[in-house]
Amino acid sequence: MNKFINPEKELWSQLLERPVFKSTEIKPKVQAILDAVQNNGDKALKEFTEKFDGLKLDSVKVTDAEFNEALEIIDDDLKAAINVAAINIEHFHSVQLPKVVRTETTKGVTCWQKAVPIQRVGLYIPGGTAPLFSSVLMLAIPARIAQCPEVVLCTPADKTGKVNPAILFVAKLTGVQCVYKIGGAQAIGAMAFGTESIKKVDKIFGPGNQYVTTAKQMVASKGIAIDMPAGPSEVMVVVDENTPAAFAASDLLSQAEHGIDSQVILLAPNKEKMAEIEAETIKQLALLPRRDIAQKALENSRFIVFSNTNDAVTFMNMYAPEHLILALDNPEDWANQVKQAGSVFLGNYTPESAGDYASGTNHTLPTNGYANAYSGVNMDSFMKKITFQQITPQGLQNIGPAIEIMAKAERLDAHKNAVTLRLKSLE
Amino acid sequence: MNKFINPEKELWSQLLERPVFKSTEIKPKVQAILDAVQNNGDKALKEFTEKFDGLKLDSVKVTDAEFNEALEIIDDDLKAAINVAAINIEHFHSVQLPKVVRTETTKGVTCWQKAVPIQRVGLYIPGGTAPLFSSVLMLAIPARIAQCPEVVLCTPADKTGKVNPAILFVAKLTGVQCVYKIGGAQAIGAMAFGTESIKKVDKIFGPGNQYVTTAKQMVASKGIAIDMPAGPSEVMVVVDENTPAAFAASDLLSQAEHGIDSQVILLAPNKEKMAEIEAETIKQLALLPRRDIAQKALENSRFIVFSNTNDAVTFMNMYAPEHLILALDNPEDWANQVKQAGSVFLGNYTPESAGDYASGTNHTLPTNGYANAYSGVNMDSFMKKITFQQITPQGLQNIGPAIEIMAKAERLDAHKNAVTLRLKSLE
Repeated sequence: MNKFINPEKELWSQLLERPVFKSTEIKPKVQAILDAVQNNGDKALKEFTEKFDGLKLDSVKVTDAEFNEALEIIDDDLKAAINVAAINIEHFHSVQLPKVVRTETTKGVTCWQKAVPIQRVGLYIPGGTAPLFSSVLMLAIPARIAQCPEVVLCTPADKTGKVNPAILFVAKLTGVQCVYKIGGAQAIGAMAFGTESIKKVDKIFGPGNQYVTTAKQMVASKGIAIDMPAGPSEVMVVVDENTPAAFAASDLLSQAEHGIDSQVILLAPNKEKMAEIEAETIKQLALLPRRDIAQKALENSRFIVFSNTNDAVTFMNMYAPEHLILALDNPEDWANQVKQAGSVFLGNYTPESAGDYASGTNHTLPTNGYANAYSGVNMDSFMKKITFQQITPQGLQNIGPAIEIMAKAERLDAHKNAVTLRLKSLE
Repeated sequence: MNKFINPEKELWSQLLERPVFKSTEIKPKVQAILDAVQNNGDKALKEFTEKFDGLKLDSVKVTDAEFNEALEIIDDDLKAAINVAAINIEHFHSVQLPKVVRTETTKGVTCWQKAVPIQRVGLYIPGGTAPLFSSVLMLAIPARIAQCPEVVLCTPADKTGKVNPAILFVAKLTGVQCVYKIGGAQAIGAMAFGTESIKKVDKIFGPGNQYVTTAKQMVASKGIAIDMPAGPSEVMVVVDENTPAAFAASDLLSQAEHGIDSQVILLAPNKEKMAEIEAETIKQLALLPRRDIAQKALENSRFIVFSNTNDAVTFMNMYAPEHLILALDNPEDWANQVKQAGSVFLGNYTPESAGDYASGTNHTLPTNGYANAYSGVNMDSFMKKITFQQITPQGLQNIGPAIEIMAKAERLDAHKNAVTLRLKSLE
């Protein structure tokens, strides 16, 4: 743990730094994969799947029989837990569904904004040791509430050709129409450009390794929409004198276990509290199955004492944490001052893992300081807001002269003319 | 004009194509500019301003004296017109301001989403022959409604060092804090990375030439937020038997005069109507000051007859027009079927130029088919949506077991532990 007591402001920029996410080296590799998928379609997908996943695929699409098999494997306990989460996620996102707001800006000039679902949505879910079925809930449920007509999912299969059953269970539960056994940058290429088996989508969502996130960034630079730029996950935990050290330590560790590049930041009011939480963190760490990963992440971590609350609030906003835990007696005071964060957890009984799984909020959040300008995934992510307007002849008489003057001042005579000849027709 | 009568579906992909926007050649040049600004700050800005704009700058910032001078130059008529527009834009955007929605997803689990202003916003406004002061209205007004604390603007000055007075008038009116006399890719670099004079911003908005839009795309790939990807402007006009040909022609031309790469598409119900509008377009074109530009843009244009309304609706949605004019007797029927568009204009007295200037809707819209996944600039563009949650001990007892089961199934034991030790403390 790197520890700091009331660091000087000159040191802050260093303390606000994130672990560096180098994509330069892998860019040419990812570009080659994307090009091959764009040019050779399914053939390239099958070649890459054999090369990277050690799997010879006949067909890329998960069959009904495979879905049925998966549904039988899943424990009833896990099914029930997933249902609890799904109901809360559905509830929270449904109330955020944007409504049409119609207004008459000038008599006869009616304008409105309407959110319309994105038509084709592609989800990427990583495979590997930790099957992130919770991310399927977080992406497919809002897509369904938004009424996106087509939702597909790419995820790698294991060496025997099987997709993790929990992922298939959740995909079925949430109305995902097709699951394809494709992983990595090749999956992003398939959804971005389309192949014989996989239709091009309008927007790509979901977490992934550096190949996947680099591929998303590269297709985004060609105008294909993605959920948000990616970076390693992070948490900031703010404590006061009364925060139970064990709770704070468990929150720091639940972020640290994500990956060796995860970053955890503790803001404490004094040295004693910091030392107490440090001791508890070391104690809990020893018992974790993923302790090697968490240990490495803790090496990137910072435990900071701010005696001055204003400094702590300023630092919190400058860091713009993905997850912000306000483990305080009066978390509301702090919450009202949050200007930049992904998701905020108030009080001592609100661990980050509640938001990761089951409270209802989304866990797809801006990392790496992107919370300065990006929102986490929410209903807006699955919809476009389209404006509409209808003007009556009288309405055009009301605003037409202003349009004519402004268009003329911008030297756009045809713009002016579109109004002038309509106004003349009304004389 | 390229004309098509009930084109076969095989031809559609060709008819849906946009003018190609080549950024490959200028990328290295833009990269060099961005690098120089990042490394040398104000010094680079002054060098590029001398080189590209023929202007030796002492200071990059517009002074109070320059603002005052500009305010005196502007005609009262133009001031009044701008005020009409500003009031409507303020009205329309204010009613779209997102509200906090708070909900209890499970007893004891309270979650809410709050929109928080982006802290530092940078606007780019091109200089040149057509001073786009209307874009200042469209960007600075919603930024002010969102309560973004810092809003700055970059725009090139002329060879005598003066910024267009209408741009300065609107900047003052809408609360822009600083205007900098910097144009081109160097302005984007300055706002993205910061220099001695210009503070780094969180998000960059505004139109520009290919250098500017390429620079925006390049900084976006480094995670700096931008309003949306850019492409040439476009309109689709849908007419019926009763649409006055002169109105339709004027709308087509008001798009065509924007630039030689603008695209205008007419969908007509029969050959006779198409011919009538074509004749009227040619007639009006001859009278336009910007007829050479509009003429070239018309060469990229497509006049298409669809006898079958369903085909026309499908084609309209596949094209995903930036501007969609439904110059129809019953525009509502069509409007309800719009799935992909930037802004939609209903009826014969709702020209695009109303939305460009004064009806109240935003004119910063997704072009190039990006309306499939992107919204035009709206209140969301200036805010991040942050989620919050607060869970009571009882709330954690309600959802905790589900979290424990899911975390275990994802093999994230520290996530489980954060719940387990809190639940144990309540026993």
